[in-house]
Amino acid sequence: MAKPVRVTVWNEFRHEKKNKEIAAIYPDGMHAAIASHLNAAGGMKARTATLDEPDHGLTEDVLAGTDVLIWWGHMAHGEVREEIVDRVQSHVIAGMGIILLHSAHFSKIFRRLMGTTCSLKWREVAEKEILWCTKPGHPITEGLPDPIILEHTEMYGEFFDVPEPEETIFISHFAGGEVFRSGCTWRRGAGKVFYFRPGHETYPIFKDPNVLKVIENACRWEAPAGRQDITVSHRGEIGWFEKQK
Amino acid sequence: MAKPVRVTVWNEFRHEKKNKEIAAIYPDGMHAAIASHLNAAGGMKARTATLDEPDHGLTEDVLAGTDVLIWWGHMAHGEVREEIVDRVQSHVIAGMGIILLHSAHFSKIFRRLMGTTCSLKWREVAEKEILWCTKPGHPITEGLPDPIILEHTEMYGEFFDVPEPEETIFISHFAGGEVFRSGCTWRRGAGKVFYFRPGHETYPIFKDPNVLKVIENACRWEAPAGRQDITVSHRGEIGWFEKQK
Amino acid sequence: MAKPVRVTVWNEFRHEKKNKEIAAIYPDGMHAAIASHLNAAGGMKARTATLDEPDHGLTEDVLAGTDVLIWWGHMAHGEVREEIVDRVQSHVIAGMGIILLHSAHFSKIFRRLMGTTCSLKWREVAEKEILWCTKPGHPITEGLPDPIILEHTEMYGEFFDVPEPEETIFISHFAGGEVFRSGCTWRRGAGKVFYFRPGHETYPIFKDPNVLKVIENACRWEAPAGRQDITVSHRGEIGWFEKQK
Amino acid sequence: MAKPVRVTVWNEFRHEKKNKEIAAIYPDGMHAAIASHLNAAGGMKARTATLDEPDHGLTEDVLAGTDVLIWWGHMAHGEVREEIVDRVQSHVIAGMGIILLHSAHFSKIFRRLMGTTCSLKWREVAEKEILWCTKPGHPITEGLPDPIILEHTEMYGEFFDVPEPEETIFISHFAGGEVFRSGCTWRRGAGKVFYFRPGHETYPIFKDPNVLKVIENACRWEAPAGRQDITVSHRGEIGWFEKQK
Repeated sequence: MAKPVRVTVWNEFRHEKKNKEIAAIYPDGMHAAIASHLNAAGGMKARTATLDEPDHGLTEDVLAGTDVLIWWGHMAHGEVREEIVDRVQSHVIAGMGIILLHSAHFSKIFRRLMGTTCSLKWREVAEKEILWCTKPGHPITEGLPDPIILEHTEMYGEFFDVPEPEETIFISHFAGGEVFRSGCTWRRGAGKVFYFRPGHETYPIFKDPNVLKVIENACRWEAPAGRQDITVSHRGEIGWFEKQK
Repeated sequence: MAKPVRVTVWNEFRHEKKNKEIAAIYPDGMHAAIASHLNAAGGMKARTATLDEPDHGLTEDVLAGTDVLIWWGHMAHGEVREEIVDRVQSHVIAGMGIILLHSAHFSKIFRRLMGTTCSLKWREVAEKEILWCTKPGHPITEGLPDPIILEHTEMYGEFFDVPEPEETIFISHFAGGEVFRSGCTWRRGAGKVFYFRPGHETYPIFKDPNVLKVIENACRWEAPAGRQDITVSHRGEIGWFEKQK
Repeated sequence: MAKPVRVTVWNEFRHEKKNKEIAAIYPDGMHAAIASHLNAAGGMKARTATLDEPDHGLTEDVLAGTDVLIWWGHMAHGEVREEIVDRVQSHVIAGMGIILLHSAHFSKIFRRLMGTTCSLKWREVAEKEILWCTKPGHPITEGLPDPIILEHTEMYGEFFDVPEPEETIFISHFAGGEVFRSGCTWRRGAGKVFYFRPGHETYPIFKDPNVLKVIENACRWEAPAGRQDITVSHRGEIGWFEKQK
Repeated sequence: MAKPVRVTVWNEFRHEKKNKEIAAIYPDGMHAAIASHLNAAGGMKARTATLDEPDHGLTEDVLAGTDVLIWWGHMAHGEVREEIVDRVQSHVIAGMGIILLHSAHFSKIFRRLMGTTCSLKWREVAEKEILWCTKPGHPITEGLPDPIILEHTEMYGEFFDVPEPEETIFISHFAGGEVFRSGCTWRRGAGKVFYFRPGHETYPIFKDPNVLKVIENACRWEAPAGRQDITVSHRGEIGWFEKQK
């Protein structure tokens, strides 16, 4: 039997504490809602970590035991310590997958991995979003309808300042007239990066079964595979590679 | 002074002959409307070629004197001879640019260059199209507003069965709910390929200044550059490359 | 338990019949050597098909029961019927994986899928090849040394006329001075395409455990996943997608 | 007449001051050698900037007047101030081109733009390098031989920890057995990024006419084009885009 994918769901966990409406939707936080879905999905073992824990809950030990890290942040991006961003980046380079949800587009770790501003346009009028699949045959699309429809969402619009995605999996249509590349992948070192747009704190997006299924699929797809060793600054004498075992 | 870009605008030129409404919009054909814009733009020299000319107007001589070929076809894709498709493909590989407009998504030459079906969804109810720029800094976007708005168009919707674009320059929003990757580029051999979605025969799309500007920009961008020699089946003895001049 | 990946190993199977030296290395053909490895690898079920069988062994039934097709051809590319090339292409678009080995770079199906000439430089002096991994973290690199060394091979050199690979997994160094992108992937429709350079008929390449491991990894990676339906020419009325179940 | 491309050649300019052999090759620094070539090439205006000037010579004014920035650094990467790295990154996002030479692979600005470690293998035994063109038709390859041969260089070997290049233009073969993706491009925001491997401080690489020609071509190719405006955090009310002029 394949080993379960070890997922850590990270949430800044502030909105849920400050806002009663949000707390009503996610009494234990968005991280708990996501982790609960993943633990029920099979083949996965999810735990959580939050901003206010020591080291933001992301110690070396936790990351060493994480195959895929899910990240949700919004109002407290600035409070994430640089040292922890460095640490997460190192683990991605070494093969850990990372999934960035919604407002995590402006997180330090996503901007670090992209090398761009990750800025975009936005609007909150609870408009309708229709996500079209532009990558049939991709594991992330498994078992999903096309399109995926979300009746009420915050709008995100182009230009989304990220490097050209290696794979564009979903493109969103918003009632107000904008479009957005809502599901995109990149590789950094041996690790896979997936940005997924839906996930506002007020609309109950993380209770939508299709949204949860996308996240679940992405966890399976991002589980580390292949060679994980990234040579760092290796000086090779002539013929060094002939002597390897 | 830089040499002018030599453009050949190809049109199957059938709709304009069969349909009075279309003839009223484009009395000399869509190719003439496009060529006329390009000839007025400066730095370019455009001529035309059509399906019913000998060799569809695309003799070796014509192609040898063409830097960028523009292609519009729809009802007569099947009448284009394989031999001419081979010839056009060879010239693209050798460095000639090619621009495919609208219904040319189903042309033999585009399907040949893509290796896929190039199929898509469509609807003709004169709905509104909004093209968003997803590639600022690309020469094709020069001097254009963002978004580009077309009040009445035929809809094209995803999934558009093409290989992952190397550059996605425009994504369209349609009033009816669909999205489409409307401006995409790929390279084949030494030649550049640009697919541009707008361009229906009934709506006067090729009189829209922004649409014409995109085509003009693409012609400048696709003009051949760099080394053009593609080695075909070369057998190299040890050290052959040291003896080159 | 996951369903086994169903692999069909196709070989033109002519060299082995005409040349005693090659027959001595591969008495039942290269396809048999590869299939035998895959059947022993676990989680896979491999069968074979060859040029001289009816429909080249690639009937609709065979392809409908194939998750991944492996292709080896060289001296008889021209004998493969267009109708069978069409059929294989359709299955790739619909999600079947395809692996092209060595001289299959000039097969009709590879050129069809790429849209280019797929030409390259070559030399047969039994020189040494060193394949370097440029994509750690890719499932195809699982369990392999870096570099992979092949003491005696035919050389293939750049420029390799294929579209920019979506992933470049291995780059080869040849003793005579050339380099080559030896392991490359692309998507076509819902199907994955992997070109792998090693595999000459005279050198016993398909007995090398690393070469076989790459092929085995590629079979697992290419097994169909995600949504497989590619819409072909669908006309959508306004709101059609709201009525889907 | 087209406006000249305004180039700023940045050099940390330390090796030349500390080491007599290097000073003998580049009495005014490598930056001066490169700028001198560019100023003689036509259509370009190059100036220089160095680490020990105020703001490392890269004030807002200097960058605002720079179309393409060339970067050479090695022993003093750590002395480049974060604030200046931020400033250069902002200008790249806004459309300024950047060219990174040789040991600049480990510069703060390159690592910032890539989001990876940019590590690699290396060796200094004055071995031979052969650069093969993998992108005919790219403006950077204009007027160059294929291959480009450098008799004595420092070796750089894969794995080169950068994101999958958008274009791989040159791949190097080293006498000792390694390969390297030596000419690669990416976009960040509206700006183009080109990494070019040759350029060691001891070997007189920046006196090689082919190396200089590559740099010159890259300057022309990277000159800003297209729309340059990257929206930052724009909140759009419904219909805002209809009201634009």
